[in-house]
Amino acid sequence: MAQRGRPRDAETDDRILRAALEQLLAYGYGGFVVDKVAEQAQVAKTTLYRRWPTKDHLVVAVIARMQDDVTVPDTGDVHADLIDYAEQIALGLNRMRRAGREGEADDASAGVVAELVAAAARHPDVGALVRTLFARRNELVLELIDRARRRGALRSDTDPGVLFDQLAGALYYRLLVTGQPIDRSYAERLVTGALRGVLPPRES
Amino acid sequence: MAQRGRPRDAETDDRILRAALEQLLAYGYGGFVVDKVAEQAQVAKTTLYRRWPTKDHLVVAVIARMQDDVTVPDTGDVHADLIDYAEQIALGLNRMRRAGREGEADDASAGVVAELVAAAARHPDVGALVRTLFARRNELVLELIDRARRRGALRSDTDPGVLFDQLAGALYYRLLVTGQPIDRSYAERLVTGALRGVLPPRES
Repeated sequence: MAQRGRPRDAETDDRILRAALEQLLAYGYGGFVVDKVAEQAQVAKTTLYRRWPTKDHLVVAVIARMQDDVTVPDTGDVHADLIDYAEQIALGLNRMRRAGREGEADDASAGVVAELVAAAARHPDVGALVRTLFARRNELVLELIDRARRRGALRSDTDPGVLFDQLAGALYYRLLVTGQPIDRSYAERLVTGALRGVLPPRES
Repeated sequence: MAQRGRPRDAETDDRILRAALEQLLAYGYGGFVVDKVAEQAQVAKTTLYRRWPTKDHLVVAVIARMQDDVTVPDTGDVHADLIDYAEQIALGLNRMRRAGREGEADDASAGVVAELVAAAARHPDVGALVRTLFARRNELVLELIDRARRRGALRSDTDPGVLFDQLAGALYYRLLVTGQPIDRSYAERLVTGALRGVLPPRES
């Protein structure tokens, strides 16, 4: 009772999340142990569990922190900005794909991201957390697209949500389902293709 | 040794896979029990395990069977054909999303598909199986897109793989990550947007 209303200790959160990210990258989802994170961050287990009650909650928090590190550029060139954004997402996904599996042969595995997706499907509260997190981050890109639409750089009837799904969706689909590589060159082909469309130029 | 080379019993396979699909739809991934499938299909457990050594292998086989039921139409109208295809994928994904959870409140959960994606990430052989399965099915749509390109219905520089990723990716992304609904109306907006692109018409 006495602790209620006390401001959260941001420095402690930060130390825990940094330790958690290190553990996640080193051991992957399967080898990620919450008690080890508490040990490395030098906090009491109870402190950690009060903030994040399960391993899944802690992993979601780590992913949220990583997402906050992704910048959404707005240079006025929506084509270039979307390529930069898509490349950053690809880098983050590749980092999580390799977590705990450095040097292993199965480079097509989706790794941590797939486990997170399954945890979100299994536990309604983790699912709600993940969806809130993505909605909040994706909103920044939807706004970028809509600003480009309003200044006439994109068609006036552009649906930002559909365009966004095409871009983020393609990257996640390759990671989670087909296992195909995602890199800068793919981000360029993807964004260019999605903006330009595939209909032949009208006869003049 | 005596059994080696004996033709597989297609009728038995069929009975097992039908029972497995029923169990999966009724109980979802978590409640799916291989022994129950053997019981319902009236086959010896050893018969089933010889064909599919784990629950994950059996679930992949069920999904493969469902995918084989998806037709890839080719009416000569690539726009309409892709909408029909995307709608069928959405229907299948929604069916798997609800598996074992009829009447539950958390309709945004990705359900079985998320568990399959995680199993593919966890077990290299399941991952290879899933990727082979999707590559084989997706090839039919890549060919549909390429035929449209060759007859001039799509730009000559259309990249079928990138266009396909935009469509399938958007559907899986909504299912697995944002939990947004996927239906006929979304399939229409998605395919129309991807074909047309979002660049404004050139000034004339």
